[in-house]
Amino acid sequence: MSDVARLAGVSIKTVSRVVNDEPAVHPDTAERVMAAIEQLGFRRNLGARNLRRGSTTGTIGLVVEDVGNPFYSELNRAIERIASSHDRQVLTGSSDEDRDRERELALEFCSRRVDGLLIVPAGMQHGYLVPEMRAGTPVVFIDRPAGDIVADTVLVDNIGGTVEAVTHLAAHGHRRIAFLGDNVEIYTAGERLRGFREGCARAGIRYDEGLVVMRTPTEEGVGDAVRRLMAGAEPPTAVVAGNNRVTVHLLRALAHAPRRPALVGFDDFELADLLDPPVTVVAHDVGGLGEAAANLLFARIQGDQSAPRKVVLPVRLVPRGSGEVAPA
Amino acid sequence: MSDVARLAGVSIKTVSRVVNDEPAVHPDTAERVMAAIEQLGFRRNLGARNLRRGSTTGTIGLVVEDVGNPFYSELNRAIERIASSHDRQVLTGSSDEDRDRERELALEFCSRRVDGLLIVPAGMQHGYLVPEMRAGTPVVFIDRPAGDIVADTVLVDNIGGTVEAVTHLAAHGHRRIAFLGDNVEIYTAGERLRGFREGCARAGIRYDEGLVVMRTPTEEGVGDAVRRLMAGAEPPTAVVAGNNRVTVHLLRALAHAPRRPALVGFDDFELADLLDPPVTVVAHDVGGLGEAAANLLFARIQGDQSAPRKVVLPVRLVPRGSGEVAPA
Repeated sequence: MSDVARLAGVSIKTVSRVVNDEPAVHPDTAERVMAAIEQLGFRRNLGARNLRRGSTTGTIGLVVEDVGNPFYSELNRAIERIASSHDRQVLTGSSDEDRDRERELALEFCSRRVDGLLIVPAGMQHGYLVPEMRAGTPVVFIDRPAGDIVADTVLVDNIGGTVEAVTHLAAHGHRRIAFLGDNVEIYTAGERLRGFREGCARAGIRYDEGLVVMRTPTEEGVGDAVRRLMAGAEPPTAVVAGNNRVTVHLLRALAHAPRRPALVGFDDFELADLLDPPVTVVAHDVGGLGEAAANLLFARIQGDQSAPRKVVLPVRLVPRGSGEVAPA
Repeated sequence: MSDVARLAGVSIKTVSRVVNDEPAVHPDTAERVMAAIEQLGFRRNLGARNLRRGSTTGTIGLVVEDVGNPFYSELNRAIERIASSHDRQVLTGSSDEDRDRERELALEFCSRRVDGLLIVPAGMQHGYLVPEMRAGTPVVFIDRPAGDIVADTVLVDNIGGTVEAVTHLAAHGHRRIAFLGDNVEIYTAGERLRGFREGCARAGIRYDEGLVVMRTPTEEGVGDAVRRLMAGAEPPTAVVAGNNRVTVHLLRALAHAPRRPALVGFDDFELADLLDPPVTVVAHDVGGLGEAAANLLFARIQGDQSAPRKVVLPVRLVPRGSGEVAPA
């Protein structure tokens, strides 16, 4: 606090008045003090003040890619359940896979003094969170790790799941397997691509770059990609879809196609079992992912100071039909 | 403020100190003042203070039934989009169709001084919100109206949609049409049942109570109900499903049934077009519902003092196959 006082050219008592929102401080002075606080990253002491008072804001923040995506709404619901049992409410925001928007949301949540932060990160640089974490705001990363800081993280076994998908298709005789994934800059997309390569290697299948498409899944983009692949000289006989969005767009694109490749999708989704053929997926427990992350966050909020943890949740292949067909 | 001072037995200056979170008030005194404030519903003046300062908390609150239901996550996303354009973040909570939980969530959001509140109400009594609304917190009800107060409301045309569903099935020759709806105490469930009766009347079909099941849709409950109906002496040849949850459970129950009735579902849902047969639905624009409600809320936040509005959004029947079959 003395640093702030020195920088702002005021007494420690004045800084204390400003920090405690007491009146009788000239607005110009208050502004100078706030600027000094900002400059010195003084937020940690505001946090400390909250702690000393034993007060909380009663909220946690959750940053996801898109609250409208069923994957994230299921995650949100599980987190809400745990938060509610700790008398906390959840502030949510969608980053739209934009790292600036992620940062903006996360810092806004912090400035509202959330008791903790759960982030499905869009970017790979999280140094901006270090002052907040030092100030006592725990942060848990979900589904993707922090880019350049050591932090609590809960993931699913992306590589293992994709290896299993390829192994399963290879066991049904497929040698030309395509992989349609999300933008490769997204951690899970990159990991699943690695799993795909490893799965090919294990099955003795030559990795063919021409059968791999990595891009943000839109209905049109996925449709174009699969039609192009299927129209090629040596079309794939099977496809691994990198996530639930890819799978859904792929199903729509293939609905009236003359030839339909075998399909395994990463992420389970509602009604997958009722489609024709029912869709084989690499399933993981999205609710369990949210619960594990929220439980870890509340352990931190309650004072758990142990080393950052990395939790990797298992996945399992659910054979339903679309992945259990031989090459045409 | 003088009422509070009188009730708490302290000076107005002391009340002011407590309200402004100044130090130098004995904790016991502060507690007495807060209790008096609570008792007198003094929150309006705290709100007024915020207004005078021209400050906002930068948040709005959203209470839905279940943030994990795709219908509500789509709603949430649309609201977030509008809120974001007004530099507001969204606090969300699930009431689980429990009126006490709805009230608890709504009042908690108010105590966090949200700038406005969007509610999909679980209960029919909203007098508890009147002090908040008088204090200047606008409230907009979504999808269901407030029970016993006059307030801004955005709905969809539940009756018109269900009438259309019955008319459509009757036009394909159906006379024994079942209605599987949600708990009849839920406004939309009741309205859709009214629409079903009206649709039957218009089509000259006798309303048969034995073909109507109204209860909270669980996979087991819907499955039992439809199996019981289909096993009856005069089974229905067509079913109207009252919402997306009923439809999904119904599809699962009928997947391997020997006889499948024609089906029209209220609410569109992802992959409805890819099922076999593709599912005919009464569709409405969930994003548009969220946008209309959020736009109305922000108009209020920005000072629109006109009379409360009731907006009813249109629905449309989307024929896809399951509703365009003759009785077996």
